[in-house]
Amino acid sequence: MTAALTVLPLTGLPEIEPGDDLAGMVADAAEAAGVTDGDCLVVTSKVVSKAEGRLVAAVTDADKRAVVESESVRVLRRRGDLVIAETRHGHVCANAGVDLSNAPDGHAILLPEDPDRSARRIRDVLLGRGVRVAVVITDTFGRAWRMGVVDVALGVAGLRAVVDLRGTLDASGRELQVTEMAIGDEVAAAAELVMGKARGVPAAIVRGLDPSWLGDGSGRDLIRPPADDLFR
Amino acid sequence: MTAALTVLPLTGLPEIEPGDDLAGMVADAAEAAGVTDGDCLVVTSKVVSKAEGRLVAAVTDADKRAVVESESVRVLRRRGDLVIAETRHGHVCANAGVDLSNAPDGHAILLPEDPDRSARRIRDVLLGRGVRVAVVITDTFGRAWRMGVVDVALGVAGLRAVVDLRGTLDASGRELQVTEMAIGDEVAAAAELVMGKARGVPAAIVRGLDPSWLGDGSGRDLIRPPADDLFR
Repeated sequence: MTAALTVLPLTGLPEIEPGDDLAGMVADAAEAAGVTDGDCLVVTSKVVSKAEGRLVAAVTDADKRAVVESESVRVLRRRGDLVIAETRHGHVCANAGVDLSNAPDGHAILLPEDPDRSARRIRDVLLGRGVRVAVVITDTFGRAWRMGVVDVALGVAGLRAVVDLRGTLDASGRELQVTEMAIGDEVAAAAELVMGKARGVPAAIVRGLDPSWLGDGSGRDLIRPPADDLFR
Repeated sequence: MTAALTVLPLTGLPEIEPGDDLAGMVADAAEAAGVTDGDCLVVTSKVVSKAEGRLVAAVTDADKRAVVESESVRVLRRRGDLVIAETRHGHVCANAGVDLSNAPDGHAILLPEDPDRSARRIRDVLLGRGVRVAVVITDTFGRAWRMGVVDVALGVAGLRAVVDLRGTLDASGRELQVTEMAIGDEVAAAAELVMGKARGVPAAIVRGLDPSWLGDGSGRDLIRPPADDLFR
């Protein structure tokens, strides 16, 4: 069925350490899994941050709070230990994206400095090997109003993170009014469904995206400009 | 690859009219597509609302505003024509979920009255035919802080909408701290990726969900209680 979407967990990646050539390792694993033109590789920011050495010492609670403060450009809400803050990139999330729980003892993991660049590195390695893929770097975010967390896109390469369907006709020939689909975030969520079931799998291949969605994009396209945002 | 997830657009449904036996029609289309135990059927609330006759007359702009007001239990923000409101179910979304643009001329489409019940109807018809599926009823929502819309789950049957991974060990043997995954919303987002590419397809089959996620659930589990909500 050609219109189907397939999401494959990308197994075979070793535990990632600071300084690792993550792009090369992901490319190797993806090739072993049969990656092909038009596929979208999804990689969690956790392993990207580890490879890029985005670890800082944070032993005491005061250390941890200081790390979160230093990563925040704007705090939206505080309740007890919970801080909802805007990161330097513009994403709004818990602890400004600082991971205090999955890091090696005495450390915190920061978000990648430039998630689009991290995505491009992986895409470029595979382009160099003759395979044209899209890449999405994800993180797990909570949401206003809704329970539970979902994976979202922080950085993209070769994918239009938001696709404007304005002007597309619906089944009855009327112009669609709901217009801008957050494709990057939906791809991240779909990939999490296979990464979530097999813990320790930090990457997935999403196969079967509409070819018109492939092209230039940025994770920044998913950030609502504060001036337009009714909740910031 | 057994761990893969597959998302198939469910084609072959006719245009839905008020009074149609949607559960029977979806079950027929799903059986024709080879639906099997453990699959999850995803159906947009638009066709559920149409079949359930959730259409109201709304000709003038004043009519439309009145419909939105009557569906809102709490207005969070207003800007120009845009109203962000809480529905009777507890969901926070634009226009309290009232669709003013895709309805037949002079009408508005309301959300299903009880999306869990709508999901159960479809599940029960297939159970009666010997196939045990999960069902998710979706709608398309905007988000605070992020651009673009995504599909989310309004109602579920046979699926745990939020899965608590607390106590699960991660790859390095540490207990996972990020705990409650919004599986219902991630399934909705994954399905939208195939419904979005083939306009006029209001349903999809998601195959390959973790069997431990199947079970009792409710779309209400995805609604953050207002008292716990920092943004309501």
